[in-house]
Amino acid sequence: MIELDFNKLNGLMPAIVQDFNTNEVLMLGFMNQEAWEATLSTGKATFYSRTRQKLWVKGETSGHVQIVKEIRIDCDDDTILLRVDQVGGAACHTGHRSCFFKKIEDGTIKIIGKPVFDPREVYHK
Amino acid sequence: MIELDFNKLNGLMPAIVQDFNTNEVLMLGFMNQEAWEATLSTGKATFYSRTRQKLWVKGETSGHVQIVKEIRIDCDDDTILLRVDQVGGAACHTGHRSCFFKKIEDGTIKIIGKPVFDPREVYHK
Repeated sequence: MIELDFNKLNGLMPAIVQDFNTNEVLMLGFMNQEAWEATLSTGKATFYSRTRQKLWVKGETSGHVQIVKEIRIDCDDDTILLRVDQVGGAACHTGHRSCFFKKIEDGTIKIIGKPVFDPREVYHK
Repeated sequence: MIELDFNKLNGLMPAIVQDFNTNEVLMLGFMNQEAWEATLSTGKATFYSRTRQKLWVKGETSGHVQIVKEIRIDCDDDTILLRVDQVGGAACHTGHRSCFFKKIEDGTIKIIGKPVFDPREVYHK
């Protein structure tokens, strides 16, 4: 049994999500023990939503789930790295491929790339 | 002025460190406002050490500093991605290139790769 350290952040651990093929960093989520076990058993990235205070299967609304290809943990057993296949080609709810689409340049924010999908169509809002 | 959201984790934000050249994820640290400003002004990755409860310039002891080449922030302004040049070739205090050298395979941990340096020599312990 693999023991992770959920104590440092009151039951949560940060989980970095990286594209398995391109090595692009797609997003960061938080997992509690339940989300971690769900991720292991289903093979789909599952997080704990801090705002909604419940388990959150990434892509449950948009269909853009993350199929886990590889799981790594760090030296201190307090951070998770998921290497995934990103279904639908975009991880971010804004439609961008990666949530890290804001680059800091000369003290201002520059948007990198264009959205892959239109969030209004995907989320029907 | 770029406003980041330090409120979700009591004044801290997770900062993912990625190798600028290889896209390998090297480590994850936490920053408070002071560490963030020090990173911006010095160009060296600086974190807040939760165990030592003080600012921590990555590599201050080992010499393996991280030269910041690019900074990105995510859609919610609550996670930082630093893309760096890793001096010394290894980010982890164990001597491994990345802190994520433990891979989960068939329910057990498999160590990936060999240490780049001997921590006993670098830290003189």
